Amino acid sequence: MSLYAKRGVSAQKEEIHEAVKDLDEGLFPKAFCKIYRDINGDSGFVNVMHADGAGTKSILAYLYWKETGDISVWQGIAQDAIVMNLDDLLCIGVYDKINFNSTIDRNKNLIPGEVIKEIINGSAAFFESMKTYGINIQYCGGETADVGDVVRTIAVNGTMAARWPKEKIISNEKIKAGNVIVGLASFGKANYEKNDNSGIGSNGLTSARHDLLSKHYAKKFPESFDPSLPNEVVYIGPNKISDIPGILSPTRTYAPFIKTLLENHFEWINGLIHCSGGGQTKCLKYIPENVKIIKDNLFCPPEIFKKIQAASGADNREMYQVFNMGCRMEIYTDPEFANEIISIANKFKIDAQIIGRVEASDVKSLEINVNGEKLLF
Amino acid sequence: MSLYAKRGVSAQKEEIHEAVKDLDEGLFPKAFCKIYRDINGDSGFVNVMHADGAGTKSILAYLYWKETGDISVWQGIAQDAIVMNLDDLLCIGVYDKINFNSTIDRNKNLIPGEVIKEIINGSAAFFESMKTYGINIQYCGGETADVGDVVRTIAVNGTMAARWPKEKIISNEKIKAGNVIVGLASFGKANYEKNDNSGIGSNGLTSARHDLLSKHYAKKFPESFDPSLPNEVVYIGPNKISDIPGILSPTRTYAPFIKTLLENHFEWINGLIHCSGGGQTKCLKYIPENVKIIKDNLFCPPEIFKKIQAASGADNREMYQVFNMGCRMEIYTDPEFANEIISIANKFKIDAQIIGRVEASDVKSLEINVNGEKLLF
Repeated sequence: MSLYAKRGVSAQKEEIHEAVKDLDEGLFPKAFCKIYRDINGDSGFVNVMHADGAGTKSILAYLYWKETGDISVWQGIAQDAIVMNLDDLLCIGVYDKINFNSTIDRNKNLIPGEVIKEIINGSAAFFESMKTYGINIQYCGGETADVGDVVRTIAVNGTMAARWPKEKIISNEKIKAGNVIVGLASFGKANYEKNDNSGIGSNGLTSARHDLLSKHYAKKFPESFDPSLPNEVVYIGPNKISDIPGILSPTRTYAPFIKTLLENHFEWINGLIHCSGGGQTKCLKYIPENVKIIKDNLFCPPEIFKKIQAASGADNREMYQVFNMGCRMEIYTDPEFANEIISIANKFKIDAQIIGRVEASDVKSLEINVNGEKLLF
Repeated sequence: MSLYAKRGVSAQKEEIHEAVKDLDEGLFPKAFCKIYRDINGDSGFVNVMHADGAGTKSILAYLYWKETGDISVWQGIAQDAIVMNLDDLLCIGVYDKINFNSTIDRNKNLIPGEVIKEIINGSAAFFESMKTYGINIQYCGGETADVGDVVRTIAVNGTMAARWPKEKIISNEKIKAGNVIVGLASFGKANYEKNDNSGIGSNGLTSARHDLLSKHYAKKFPESFDPSLPNEVVYIGPNKISDIPGILSPTRTYAPFIKTLLENHFEWINGLIHCSGGGQTKCLKYIPENVKIIKDNLFCPPEIFKKIQAASGADNREMYQVFNMGCRMEIYTDPEFANEIISIANKFKIDAQIIGRVEASDVKSLEINVNGEKLLF
């Protein structure tokens, strides 16, 4: 049993997929988000609602805030919860005219109103900043519940809803043998960002937190983990949070770039995959049955992932299954469009390169080459 | 400090209101839910997104399931999370063409996939049943996150989104002196329900659980409460869950009745209030500044609230501030329409009566008369 499993997380979520398998899979089964008919009956439009959150990154923010007193860290958690939704929606082609609502569950005894205020104001500030790029997200309020008997510290989630022209949906159905994959860096500093980004995103952070941080946190903040976890998986790393500032980098959105791409070159885009939970294996859920994906030119993983790997001793197979490893978005396109897509990304100061390709195959599979090591999925 | 406050809950949520006070209050400040312009630019329509959940009622379900093995109890929690949203939307006049998305955070080590499946299937079944009454709610999927370091057991939340004709919104702006209040019973068995309902709803259940249940639960299920709570407020009652089956009654929806009312008599309805968090004082947030509400003919509280009061020793003032006390929906109307509204409710086998009235006043206030005792708010 992996450390990951012992901590009660499942990168592939098999159990959840089994639980929801009878649900309507929507109009486009291979699309990155579930897409449904317009509830108001307009056949030219579809509806999408999508929920996601900052996950256990909120615990890292809690520890950082308690240790430093810097309450502004919660603004980053607001961005994480939003971008985990927004960048999922980008993958179906939706980048504008979005309604957003937040769902916050807190332990009132540990999380005062000032923290909620930072999250709310951080959300509003992020939407303001997106608006200047023509990405209009309307903040439709939310619910904050005081449920300390359910939540140890705080859970920050959000939901987005959009009504979008059906003909402007990216359904991933055009992905086929012969396509190349343009990968977008999760790290660096885009021209619409104020700070350098470590690339961490909002996935894999249960593992990363326990593998990186020291027992100090178990003793001082027992509210920051499940007390029923075996001691040998709880805060087993060498670090204090101040040693790894990149761990709290707010998740980058690719929205300004993807908007430009979709508005000008919609026909070029065969598929879009957000490498969130499942990391570099996420694509397996959305590609056709008769292809093999080969990723043999991924980015050199940024420092944060090297630190996590060094601390955890995880092999590459596990690392690439859990983390984005430097590439958080994949664009499937025909080879002749790849260079122009990369050049547009670069105008936004986003690193981009052809990270791999799609080949014909009898069985759906994925091969990742890392420094000569072949990982097969 | 009340028991309620010691347990880290706040019926009035002053702190949250302070935290969100800079947010756009929407098009109709007195409306029960926040209402915004149509993000797609249609001036004849408005958008609403609304989030809520089963709160700590999920803990009661957890305890019941662990003690009895009856997993179907989670279907009721699905209904609770939905109705806490749906009946809020009813209050702004929205009863159809709704999209729904669920947000579930769980501790995977305690909550297996079968529980998630019951919640998902329970949600789908509830929507099917509503559909037969012309209330169309499209289930747009959801997110289940494994976050055991954040969530002790499980948090079940949901979000609804709707696009609705602006002229068919109930904004509460028509509430004025001279109105009467028709109250709808939270208990009994409506003609669209399969079982008798205790009336409990989904509010006040942190208090009710600790006041009703015995220390047995603290010892046997330490995962069911915040270990930092003072021992004297944790599970201090005389009961086992089997002694109080009504505590898990799924929250009744009034949707089939309210739909009929709004479709046929929209003009009669001056305001609608869902007596959720805040109980019988909820109306204070939505009425105009120049009125006094007098409620002097509330329902005799059903058994479940008598049990809670007997166990907790709470006074009437606290009880009516936390619980619905038998009346979960208020219809503000002109006196001449009240009898017909009651008669329509009765056709759905929902008990209804004139519970109070709106009087002119210099200051906004509320008076509740309970067996000769005057409670002033």
